[in-house]
Amino acid sequence: MDFSPSERSLALSEQLRRFLREEVIPAEPAYHAQLAGGADWRGWRQPQVMEDLKARARAAGLWNLFLPDATHGAGLTNAEYAPLAEIMGHSFIAPEVFNCNAPDTGNMEVLAQYGSPAQQQRWLEPLLAGTIRSGFCMTEPDVASSDATNMAATATVEGDEVVLNGRKWWTTGLGHPNLKILIFMGLTDPQADPYRRHSMVLCPVEAPGVRIERMLPVFGNYDEPAGHGEVSFDNVRLPLDHIILGPGRGFEIAQGRLGPGRIHHCMRALGAAERALSLLCRRATSRTAFGKPLAALGSNGDIIAELRIAIDQARLLTLHAAWTIDTQGIKAAMSLISQIKVVVPMVAQRAADAAIQIHGGAGVSEDFPLAALYAYARVLRLADGPDEVHRRQVAKLELARQKREAA
Amino acid sequence: MDFSPSERSLALSEQLRRFLREEVIPAEPAYHAQLAGGADWRGWRQPQVMEDLKARARAAGLWNLFLPDATHGAGLTNAEYAPLAEIMGHSFIAPEVFNCNAPDTGNMEVLAQYGSPAQQQRWLEPLLAGTIRSGFCMTEPDVASSDATNMAATATVEGDEVVLNGRKWWTTGLGHPNLKILIFMGLTDPQADPYRRHSMVLCPVEAPGVRIERMLPVFGNYDEPAGHGEVSFDNVRLPLDHIILGPGRGFEIAQGRLGPGRIHHCMRALGAAERALSLLCRRATSRTAFGKPLAALGSNGDIIAELRIAIDQARLLTLHAAWTIDTQGIKAAMSLISQIKVVVPMVAQRAADAAIQIHGGAGVSEDFPLAALYAYARVLRLADGPDEVHRRQVAKLELARQKREAA
Amino acid sequence: MDFSPSERSLALSEQLRRFLREEVIPAEPAYHAQLAGGADWRGWRQPQVMEDLKARARAAGLWNLFLPDATHGAGLTNAEYAPLAEIMGHSFIAPEVFNCNAPDTGNMEVLAQYGSPAQQQRWLEPLLAGTIRSGFCMTEPDVASSDATNMAATATVEGDEVVLNGRKWWTTGLGHPNLKILIFMGLTDPQADPYRRHSMVLCPVEAPGVRIERMLPVFGNYDEPAGHGEVSFDNVRLPLDHIILGPGRGFEIAQGRLGPGRIHHCMRALGAAERALSLLCRRATSRTAFGKPLAALGSNGDIIAELRIAIDQARLLTLHAAWTIDTQGIKAAMSLISQIKVVVPMVAQRAADAAIQIHGGAGVSEDFPLAALYAYARVLRLADGPDEVHRRQVAKLELARQKREAA
Amino acid sequence: MDFSPSERSLALSEQLRRFLREEVIPAEPAYHAQLAGGADWRGWRQPQVMEDLKARARAAGLWNLFLPDATHGAGLTNAEYAPLAEIMGHSFIAPEVFNCNAPDTGNMEVLAQYGSPAQQQRWLEPLLAGTIRSGFCMTEPDVASSDATNMAATATVEGDEVVLNGRKWWTTGLGHPNLKILIFMGLTDPQADPYRRHSMVLCPVEAPGVRIERMLPVFGNYDEPAGHGEVSFDNVRLPLDHIILGPGRGFEIAQGRLGPGRIHHCMRALGAAERALSLLCRRATSRTAFGKPLAALGSNGDIIAELRIAIDQARLLTLHAAWTIDTQGIKAAMSLISQIKVVVPMVAQRAADAAIQIHGGAGVSEDFPLAALYAYARVLRLADGPDEVHRRQVAKLELARQKREAA
Repeated sequence: MDFSPSERSLALSEQLRRFLREEVIPAEPAYHAQLAGGADWRGWRQPQVMEDLKARARAAGLWNLFLPDATHGAGLTNAEYAPLAEIMGHSFIAPEVFNCNAPDTGNMEVLAQYGSPAQQQRWLEPLLAGTIRSGFCMTEPDVASSDATNMAATATVEGDEVVLNGRKWWTTGLGHPNLKILIFMGLTDPQADPYRRHSMVLCPVEAPGVRIERMLPVFGNYDEPAGHGEVSFDNVRLPLDHIILGPGRGFEIAQGRLGPGRIHHCMRALGAAERALSLLCRRATSRTAFGKPLAALGSNGDIIAELRIAIDQARLLTLHAAWTIDTQGIKAAMSLISQIKVVVPMVAQRAADAAIQIHGGAGVSEDFPLAALYAYARVLRLADGPDEVHRRQVAKLELARQKREAA
Repeated sequence: MDFSPSERSLALSEQLRRFLREEVIPAEPAYHAQLAGGADWRGWRQPQVMEDLKARARAAGLWNLFLPDATHGAGLTNAEYAPLAEIMGHSFIAPEVFNCNAPDTGNMEVLAQYGSPAQQQRWLEPLLAGTIRSGFCMTEPDVASSDATNMAATATVEGDEVVLNGRKWWTTGLGHPNLKILIFMGLTDPQADPYRRHSMVLCPVEAPGVRIERMLPVFGNYDEPAGHGEVSFDNVRLPLDHIILGPGRGFEIAQGRLGPGRIHHCMRALGAAERALSLLCRRATSRTAFGKPLAALGSNGDIIAELRIAIDQARLLTLHAAWTIDTQGIKAAMSLISQIKVVVPMVAQRAADAAIQIHGGAGVSEDFPLAALYAYARVLRLADGPDEVHRRQVAKLELARQKREAA
Repeated sequence: MDFSPSERSLALSEQLRRFLREEVIPAEPAYHAQLAGGADWRGWRQPQVMEDLKARARAAGLWNLFLPDATHGAGLTNAEYAPLAEIMGHSFIAPEVFNCNAPDTGNMEVLAQYGSPAQQQRWLEPLLAGTIRSGFCMTEPDVASSDATNMAATATVEGDEVVLNGRKWWTTGLGHPNLKILIFMGLTDPQADPYRRHSMVLCPVEAPGVRIERMLPVFGNYDEPAGHGEVSFDNVRLPLDHIILGPGRGFEIAQGRLGPGRIHHCMRALGAAERALSLLCRRATSRTAFGKPLAALGSNGDIIAELRIAIDQARLLTLHAAWTIDTQGIKAAMSLISQIKVVVPMVAQRAADAAIQIHGGAGVSEDFPLAALYAYARVLRLADGPDEVHRRQVAKLELARQKREAA
Repeated sequence: MDFSPSERSLALSEQLRRFLREEVIPAEPAYHAQLAGGADWRGWRQPQVMEDLKARARAAGLWNLFLPDATHGAGLTNAEYAPLAEIMGHSFIAPEVFNCNAPDTGNMEVLAQYGSPAQQQRWLEPLLAGTIRSGFCMTEPDVASSDATNMAATATVEGDEVVLNGRKWWTTGLGHPNLKILIFMGLTDPQADPYRRHSMVLCPVEAPGVRIERMLPVFGNYDEPAGHGEVSFDNVRLPLDHIILGPGRGFEIAQGRLGPGRIHHCMRALGAAERALSLLCRRATSRTAFGKPLAALGSNGDIIAELRIAIDQARLLTLHAAWTIDTQGIKAAMSLISQIKVVVPMVAQRAADAAIQIHGGAGVSEDFPLAALYAYARVLRLADGPDEVHRRQVAKLELARQKREAA
């Protein structure tokens, strides 16, 4: 259990923190000013300031840090990347600046690990270069997607083609003007072993039959220009070589993709929680009521202490999960990955909620990023499996472990 | 402790529930479709469907039910009105349909109880008729307004004029096209007894020196066309007769205004909580995962039970507060009013959060009113005094009571 | 929903409160001093001071107040008795002083309502007089008794006899020197409709085959001289007329017995919660740390406020349940009875825990009744159905209600 | 942040776990059977089985593992000892078996680190040999001891003597038949700098003026034969060389003593939490209700998951605190030490409470160690500073840190 960051990770942390402070945070207002606004994604545009920041980040070597594959990316372990992801979590726009934003990160990992050379050349290269964006199509509107076996969309093999049908939603990035490629997961062989039934298919967004239906607001925000959207697939016909790793390998790929992705999500959420706590403390010491700074009133001290404790615990658990993936593989880390997925978003939600409360009305407005932090954390309790599914998984593994030990 | 609704209240309940089901809920989509959208309140407009609904509600006698004054309003007690307010809480647009929406209700109460005949004629009459809207200017952006003594805005008496200066925010209704009048609270005599320092002044929105600065989003929503806004007062000069009840009487009026207002808020919030629970139960029984309806999975049954219990308890407490105001006056109900202000918004927030969780991604989108319900409940934990101030008040009164009993 | 106590109830409340303050509380030390101590119930004895108090309470007319049957008892409704039960909850020894202690109350109710004249003469009369004590044998050590259908003990009809076999535990009062009669619940006809399978049988404690196995400590305390015990029944043969109401009527009786019993339990627990809160407030104002009374430090004010709110809500819910039983019958009150059973013991537990915390080490010692209050409340979350079973019931009824309303 | 146990620690863990399983756990019934019972400590005796176990543990080299001083003890770092302390936490009698029980551990550390050669020879030697027991006298009954400056007992220097006066309680081990020495903390110079006012004095228990007043039950248990007691000091005169490190050095010593002690407490409490969770899981899978194992009912799975998560997080935090003490010293670990003191006892309490609930009545009886585990965890929230004081400390340090970072 050695979670100490490596020298390289430490050096990158310092560089990243400086870049964030000097370049990213100051650019936030310009970024928001350059957004077009509104529910209609057709008018969304990529702010130029983002492209400028990306260029500078890339030049500084702060690029594709998430990718453990040293050929295509930084070649950091999960434990090495984790503190970097936390730093990026301090600003909503930071992950994209460093080409480390979901879902592109997961998609790039999939392509780097499982993609054919042709798939890599066509899609991985531009993604690594940050010139295109991608989406991931898993969740469906008409079923409880928390149970993956409910998946109703199909990826049927017909001759040398695979035909996609169905409706997906909460595809992040769907509204982005640079979106070019979707990874679609669908049912291929209902008779196969449950974990061999589904395929992952690379589907260009302009393929005939793909239709972006609408963007979905999250607590009223569209997270422009990436957005989260609903997309229908109506007899979308693609060559068989668009299937990643071949028919029926979808779950196998998903397993490998989700572990590190959850580490990234959680570390970024911890960065968000730290930012909320930091804003909370600043407000608590700068405003006065009943003759005292807010920090000295009522439960506020306890709230600060409890958040400090919760964040520190959650970070250690996440580092433990990262270290376990690195040293023992995904399978050994299954419970830990579900554990952090339950704990961290809730800690971030609590931190944002407490910070909102101490800010009063200002907390729910846009004068502070707190309402947005709250929405972000809240959604994370649903994305990549809701809390309930992960608790279920943790309980199952714990009961199995206890049974083994009692034997 | 007789909380039984009177026959009149029962009859109105039934009528109201029918009107809500048959007229209001079906009109919600049209209402939203007729909104203009955006952050710029200058373009906001009152949907025609609302005016139509108001006309029908008024014709049906479902009008000004909140006003205990029988001359100007329905003449119901707080306990009689409470269940009606809960029914209105099921739809965001319902309160205005029945001319029972905050802050006009509180402003009308103030004018009915404390206004001079001239003030009543000029402002109360059109408010009762629903032809104009009003705002209430208390909270300030630059101080912790949870401590009312922090109030920095001034209402200075100069000769036969009162001069208003300062900046207020979270004035609900500030963006409404029909907004005509503001009730402004400011410091008049810093040397007076703390509860005799402030005045409430009627300030027409078009008075020179009044400037609407901006509208404030709540979790990204502007609650158009009423909105919540920031407004500055720069040497606004008004005749002395614009002061309600005379200089230095502001806190006296506030006390009388806030008690019933909190009952209304809480009962409406209970209606919102019931709606959230109802949506939760519907989703829990209509979606299936792991081979079972969601209601049968994990903690979902317990969540439903806990919400049922929490809502029922909170309602009884609110009815108790209403009954206490009616039978023993505001002063005897001080602790209870603070108690419900702590409990009810939190129950509504919990209900909305639980309902969101069971809806998955749909819960945070606009496909269901849950994100809006959540934002509404969340803000209520800050409005009219944050939870912290009310808990502080409850504790203070409890310690005083215990001391008396021990003596 | 008129929870106002009747004039008779109010008068009894006042009388009871005075008796408690002047007679019962001052006698507590003598009572404890007269106990024999230890795990061996054979040496337990009834303190003389209890018999003296009983005589005075009876003379004062404060006797059998729990019994709604006016022929045998006070003839008060549940709503009338509820506040009296709360007052008794302030002292552990009070209920017995007034002959209102469980499980004798429930057993007397059963006999008054369902007992034959012969059963009433033999057992009800001396119980009403307080000269004997009784036990109730339902829970079993070898199965999860939260599911009543798990019950394994048998009450088999053989000719004109009923034969009892099995093992029961948590029979309160089993160690009492005056214990004479047990009400035993067992399976009579496994083939019958599930709610017609069990019988309730009056079993004298000295019947051959009845064997008191041991007393069970609760957090180390035996609650002497009543105690809670384990008892085995080994071919205990009794005449058929010892079955109450006849074979197979056990559940029917249990339903009638448990509703009011839960009201009593909950109201007493609220009395216990009030006592804990009162001790908490006294300590909070009489001890000083960091230059301030404890009440002014950290979250202590909020804790006091939250307890005040929780107790008041729980009391209103319990009164609502009592009123519903009185006016609409047990069946209409099913959800409410389960609701209070979930809420009230938890509130009492929280109050005791918070009071312990503020007392520091003194709180867990015997210098204050707080550890005992805690244990009492904690056990109540298990007795008469654990929280889990009641939440399950509330959820089931709520889902059914929602379904009806949606239809 | 390398928490990996060293090879030596790993080897000791394995040895310890085996010894626990093969020797200690099987001896628990004999140990309890050899206790004398009751409130009167004069009759308490040390069970022979404990002395036998101690002899075997010592022979096996499992002795004084807690002592970082390699001359007198095992010479393990805090991080190395932490997992061993957790293992000992699985059985109440284990710590003494390995001569690693509080408060002797803390007292031995003090003597090893600060004791004069004469003090070490007279008291440390027999303590290390396990032939005598010691107590620590800090908390006082008449003041809020959570604020150390409230301490009223005095250690007055008069010529070549120090004179002790005052009353202490919650001195663990006070009732032990082998108790020989107390470490007494008292006020020496009220005018000195606040952290130089107090002295720690070695006071033989048979010194004239020392009077054991009584033993204090914890939730009804006396924790015989060690016990927790109240002791008065009435003009106890001792030679000046009984002061450790000299007059006014008490706080300095206390600081050094409490850090590692809290690590030990917390790791043992985690062992206790694991035992509770293990019992919970066993019950959840071995009992059936409503046709399913309890583990599959309602929230039980979620409860198991939440406990697994909470324990794992709390352990990582405790290891982090241990590692920080080892690598950066006590001062750098101040916040972490307070953090674990808040978190771990609460986790253990929650685990015990949840395990009690799933065991039903059996959970609060002595058939399982759960009620005792609960009491142990509950007391730990008060001992060594109540939660409140530690949260206060964490908040203070966090606000200071945030201020530094913002600057």
